[in-house]
Amino acid sequence: MVAVQHKKDGRSRILAAARSLFDNYGFHQTSMAELAMAAQVSVGQIYRLFKSKEDIIEAIVHDDADQWCQDMEEIRTRLDAGERTIEETFEQLFRHSIDEEKEALSFDILAEGFRNPAVGATVSAMCVRFRSFIRYFACAANDRLSGEALDAAEEVTLACLFGLGHRSLSRPKLGAGSTARRSAQMLVAALRGVQ
Amino acid sequence: MVAVQHKKDGRSRILAAARSLFDNYGFHQTSMAELAMAAQVSVGQIYRLFKSKEDIIEAIVHDDADQWCQDMEEIRTRLDAGERTIEETFEQLFRHSIDEEKEALSFDILAEGFRNPAVGATVSAMCVRFRSFIRYFACAANDRLSGEALDAAEEVTLACLFGLGHRSLSRPKLGAGSTARRSAQMLVAALRGVQ
Repeated sequence: MVAVQHKKDGRSRILAAARSLFDNYGFHQTSMAELAMAAQVSVGQIYRLFKSKEDIIEAIVHDDADQWCQDMEEIRTRLDAGERTIEETFEQLFRHSIDEEKEALSFDILAEGFRNPAVGATVSAMCVRFRSFIRYFACAANDRLSGEALDAAEEVTLACLFGLGHRSLSRPKLGAGSTARRSAQMLVAALRGVQ
Repeated sequence: MVAVQHKKDGRSRILAAARSLFDNYGFHQTSMAELAMAAQVSVGQIYRLFKSKEDIIEAIVHDDADQWCQDMEEIRTRLDAGERTIEETFEQLFRHSIDEEKEALSFDILAEGFRNPAVGATVSAMCVRFRSFIRYFACAANDRLSGEALDAAEEVTLACLFGLGHRSLSRPKLGAGSTARRSAQMLVAALRGVQ
């Protein structure tokens, strides 16, 4: 039991240190030795838990996807229970996306997804999970959506979520709260205006 | 004159080779020696034209921004001349964004923008130029937009442009043409539905 706990702590420490180093210096510019030092583990311990640096990136994507899907599930439950309107639901989703940190890490992971098929497959699998939630929320805004119109609704919603979450470098004037609230109103208008 | 021409050819060759290598292998994983070989120039020639690898990235961002703004200017002219509706205008903008290649390079540049202040400033300056066009198109869809509503319209439009242009890894079902056309209809509905 102590061994399991220790193993888990090691994994968490390695992933937390990897997130921070990869975000600050880049995935390829971080060595396993630097990671081991930051996580206070040995290089050997990293290799006992992860096959490679790519394997660490995949673990980060998996963990993030699990957390996002858990959050989306909670948001869906509150919508279904009538505790939140569809506008409030999208507002919360956008706020979640806007508030996310470590944008540089996110771009590094996406770039790696194009160059490393295993990372690309992991990122794609994560997106496929997101897409089913997004489809659900789009239909909640407009239950007449189907076929190509629903597919397009999915694309626009995903684009908004992704775009709003990666706008820091574009120097936005509008703050997170107003952006999330007003974008949600606009998206609902868009979803109801699909022909 | 011959020297000027040769210098220009060298610059173009270096930038074209840099785009290809940075996209395929990553900015940090490409050495100046590899770049010189691919561009068929000497390393010294690269350093006569560019101070550093970061300087090359900045030149790529500048060139892309100039091209995008020129395209946006053309799209605006056709809208103003009544040759295209606002839906057709957004359709063309989205199509432009979706059709863009070298997504991995784009993510590398954005990641570098967070880590290197000079690159970050160049990317931000590019976005500021985009934003003025986007604001113009948003007002063309709904001339009652002002204040915070107009700011939000700008954010959603920028998010759609960025998100639709970076969806490859998310395995979209809907093709480029239908996505651009239907997303444009939805965005116009969103811009007209702003409260």
